[in-house]
Amino acid sequence: MTTSATPRLPVTAIIAPGWDQPRWQRALMAAAPGLEVRLWPDLGDVSEIEAVLLWKQPAGALAGMSRLGLAQSLGAGVEHLLNDPAIGDHVVLGRAVDPAMTGEMVRFVVHAVLAVSVDAAGYRAQQAAGLWEERSVPGGALRVGMLGLGELGAAAAQALAGLGFTVTGWSRSARQVAGVTCLSGAEGLDRLIAGTDCLVNLLPLTDETRGLIDAALLARLPQGAHLVNVARGGHVVEADLLAALDDGRLASATLDVTAVEPLPQGHPFWSHPKIVLTPHVAAASTPETMAPILAESLRRHAAGRPPLDPVERTRGY
Amino acid sequence: MTTSATPRLPVTAIIAPGWDQPRWQRALMAAAPGLEVRLWPDLGDVSEIEAVLLWKQPAGALAGMSRLGLAQSLGAGVEHLLNDPAIGDHVVLGRAVDPAMTGEMVRFVVHAVLAVSVDAAGYRAQQAAGLWEERSVPGGALRVGMLGLGELGAAAAQALAGLGFTVTGWSRSARQVAGVTCLSGAEGLDRLIAGTDCLVNLLPLTDETRGLIDAALLARLPQGAHLVNVARGGHVVEADLLAALDDGRLASATLDVTAVEPLPQGHPFWSHPKIVLTPHVAAASTPETMAPILAESLRRHAAGRPPLDPVERTRGY
Ligand SMILES: NC(=O)c1ccc[n+]([C@@H]2O[C@H](COP(=O)([O-])OP(=O)(O)OC[C@H]3O[C@@H](n4cnc5c(N)ncnc54)[C@H](OP(=O)(O)O)[C@@H]3O)[C@@H](O)[C@H]2O)c1
Ligand SMILES: NC(=O)c1ccc[n+]([C@@H]2O[C@H](COP(=O)([O-])OP(=O)(O)OC[C@H]3O[C@@H](n4cnc5c(N)ncnc54)[C@H](OP(=O)(O)O)[C@@H]3O)[C@@H](O)[C@H]2O)c1
Repeated sequence: MTTSATPRLPVTAIIAPGWDQPRWQRALMAAAPGLEVRLWPDLGDVSEIEAVLLWKQPAGALAGMSRLGLAQSLGAGVEHLLNDPAIGDHVVLGRAVDPAMTGEMVRFVVHAVLAVSVDAAGYRAQQAAGLWEERSVPGGALRVGMLGLGELGAAAAQALAGLGFTVTGWSRSARQVAGVTCLSGAEGLDRLIAGTDCLVNLLPLTDETRGLIDAALLARLPQGAHLVNVARGGHVVEADLLAALDDGRLASATLDVTAVEPLPQGHPFWSHPKIVLTPHVAAASTPETMAPILAESLRRHAAGRPPLDPVERTRGY
Repeated sequence: MTTSATPRLPVTAIIAPGWDQPRWQRALMAAAPGLEVRLWPDLGDVSEIEAVLLWKQPAGALAGMSRLGLAQSLGAGVEHLLNDPAIGDHVVLGRAVDPAMTGEMVRFVVHAVLAVSVDAAGYRAQQAAGLWEERSVPGGALRVGMLGLGELGAAAAQALAGLGFTVTGWSRSARQVAGVTCLSGAEGLDRLIAGTDCLVNLLPLTDETRGLIDAALLARLPQGAHLVNVARGGHVVEADLLAALDDGRLASATLDVTAVEPLPQGHPFWSHPKIVLTPHVAAASTPETMAPILAESLRRHAAGRPPLDPVERTRGY
């Protein structure tokens, strides 16, 4: 055995129902020539599969994968890795951090916050009413609170600070982000909430963060604050959100994610005048930009090293 | 006469009908203690007035100001200085460049471009229709063309480049803006237009730029391009804009300024489905941030020096 030999890449399966799996396959094989990539549901002899690239795999899809060593998310979220009982504790978990996806999320969040800052909705209503009149808008005085200072939250917070906003961020461990006041812990959250006019959520969904945005938290925001949730629907207690919008505590909510997706017909979010709703599109995974990153993680795994962006089971993200 | 004596500040008049003149007076006197500030229309003996701070002064308002030496705009635009026959050629012209105003304009422009990039209008229509479906949006691939690379255009171009957009800018003289491809001249304009999906106008209104955005220019934009006009209504030939929107060449226009302001009732812009209209509010002058800058220009004038941001008659801005 020589050290210069390239380790054999793992036999890899893509399980992402509803996505364009052949496009992911093409991009991956271009990034890792010679890689064997099988596509759900035609996985052949599953006992040969050594790595899986997953997005919302059906229950039981991983049954019988006795040689599985790496489970890699095709997106930023990892709940589908942590909640699948077929993924044993010995399986290494990874996710893909893609600068192209980060750029998309930053643009989505910055747009949502700026729409509040310039009161785009108020001016739209004035145009519809034929009214030419300056409005009092928050402008750069809007104080932004960012929940989560990871890959996406830190980048969005920094972009907002660069546009002149006062930005406070919150994370589990202490962080440093240029131009952003960084807080952590329960006391840090209290301070952030009390001084936030526009709360942006970019936390991962874990046991600790599920339902965090509830009546108690919303009641501690300044009167007339705004919410932008681009993380997961499970972070928000939807009935509490509706109550806060209806009693005027919250002025608006921009929601890219909901507890149940697609949002069921007839759900009050669809037609609520203070809710801006998008169908979980803030930052999509793109095969062509993500494949080289996934390929590198597969190579690292083959060489016995951790993937580029490992997921830690104990912290839940 | 000693060189250390502080020169006497000029007797100053504010002529800005419809604005909160007393607030400007208070801010100015705080920034330049001892300054004599008179407010339109109570100007007293006008032959004593040595400096005027102007926004859309009425015709004839400056009659009889035989000692006038400085005419300073209270905003970024200067048409009202150049077009007032009562302002003789010996009067020095200035305008106020205020970082707070630049920040406002940057946020307004970035919001308008991001709204196109994430297709906010398309998703709004989907929400109204109860449709949960990913749309094909331009995202970061939207190529931005910036007309004007002055105080406002350069700052907006740089912010957009920082958000991942490919930005090309156009100015009269050759400029350098970090991250932005800078062009000038007629040929530069041709190149910019041919490669622009979202055209932003931040030119001053001069003899050379009036009516620049006409049918011929719009026809050279790629099919389905977008326009954001935050400079002056006179830059756009409104009938040509409507025709380009109606024949599909242009996908949308975001207009903060119009040829006639307030926009007359019944004007087709009010209800056009592809037009987003705001009442000239992109970046307002704020007394508290601008007064120290104006005060410094008054001090410089008193000392026989040019104001902070002189206006050049020959180039028209
Ligand atoms: N809507 C969409 O299209 C879309 C697209 C992509 C991602 N997302 C969502 O965005 C989330 C964030 O992505 P990311 O890549 O930025 O995640 P990440 O890099 O893992 O960052 C997570 C951040 O949240 C903090 N955090 C985690 N648990 C916490 C707790 N209990 N208390 C306080 N802070 C906590 C982390 O703190 P530390 O810094 O101390 O670790 C970290 O700063 C994803 O999990 C996903 O849900 C949505
Ligand atoms: N909607 C609002 O609320 C609002 C608020 C403030 C300002 N504005 C508008 O914004 C405009 C721009 O403000 P600013 O402070 O950025 O102006 P500025 O600093 O004077 O910059 C003007 C820019 O336009 C370029 N330019 C002028 N004439 C040109 C020509 N014939 N061909 C090519 N380029 C030309 C200049 O080129 P050089 O660099 O070579 O000089 C410069 O880059 C104002 O004039 C005003 O109309 C609107």
